[in-house]
Amino acid sequence: MATTLTPPESLDWVFARPRTAKLGTVTASGAPHVAPIWVARDGDRIVFNTGADTAKGKALARDPRVSLCFDDEAPPFAFVIVSGTAEISEEPEALRHWAGVIGGRYMGEDQAEAYGERNGVPGELLVFVTPTKVVGVLDIAD
Amino acid sequence: MATTLTPPESLDWVFARPRTAKLGTVTASGAPHVAPIWVARDGDRIVFNTGADTAKGKALARDPRVSLCFDDEAPPFAFVIVSGTAEISEEPEALRHWAGVIGGRYMGEDQAEAYGERNGVPGELLVFVTPTKVVGVLDIAD
Repeated sequence: MATTLTPPESLDWVFARPRTAKLGTVTASGAPHVAPIWVARDGDRIVFNTGADTAKGKALARDPRVSLCFDDEAPPFAFVIVSGTAEISEEPEALRHWAGVIGGRYMGEDQAEAYGERNGVPGELLVFVTPTKVVGVLDIAD
Repeated sequence: MATTLTPPESLDWVFARPRTAKLGTVTASGAPHVAPIWVARDGDRIVFNTGADTAKGKALARDPRVSLCFDDEAPPFAFVIVSGTAEISEEPEALRHWAGVIGGRYMGEDQAEAYGERNGVPGELLVFVTPTKVVGVLDIAD
């Protein structure tokens, strides 16, 4: 039987291990675009880095609405979909801090500083997503 | 070093195992929406089922443009993003056939017939995506 999660349970599931988010944005022509990103948790917000000049960065500058999808790709399957609003920061200290936290989550703690230096630089954006709707379902195919 | 795949190599990577696609669509309000789906391969096309009354089904009826994202969530990381155009069929025999193929891919061959019966019914749509752009990158963090 499929199990529905509450929003807090959904975020706990998302951050229980370093899953990648699939970030949905809308291009200038109105077409959807989905790309994988690394994320970290800041309380109830989801944080990620992207370049100001990338497709993702430009889309967020036009429209702050995003969709973030996480899933288990094997039976019994599970997913969490977060709809939210993005706020962009270019504050150097926060950018470097979060770039390190995010890099460390996916590549190991010993890599955190290197990722902070690499991704905590001008031209990179720090994006905080405040969820407006969270849907989580476990054991879909059970 | 990251390796860029050609479009045919990208599709081979996608279908080498039963990965879920993260389907990006645009809602009526213009916001992005991403959800996981099961897919199968029909030559150069990607096939999936969805309900006519679901958010996905309604979005495709409004705008046939889709984005499909597949990724490896662990080092060295990899992804394929397929931008494409969806064509919808409700032809009963094809619907039942593909619902079985798709269910069998993810749940095992012994489940194919059950999924064909369950998802190959009126109200379900068969969606064929013809890729217009395919981007594939392996060994991103190497």
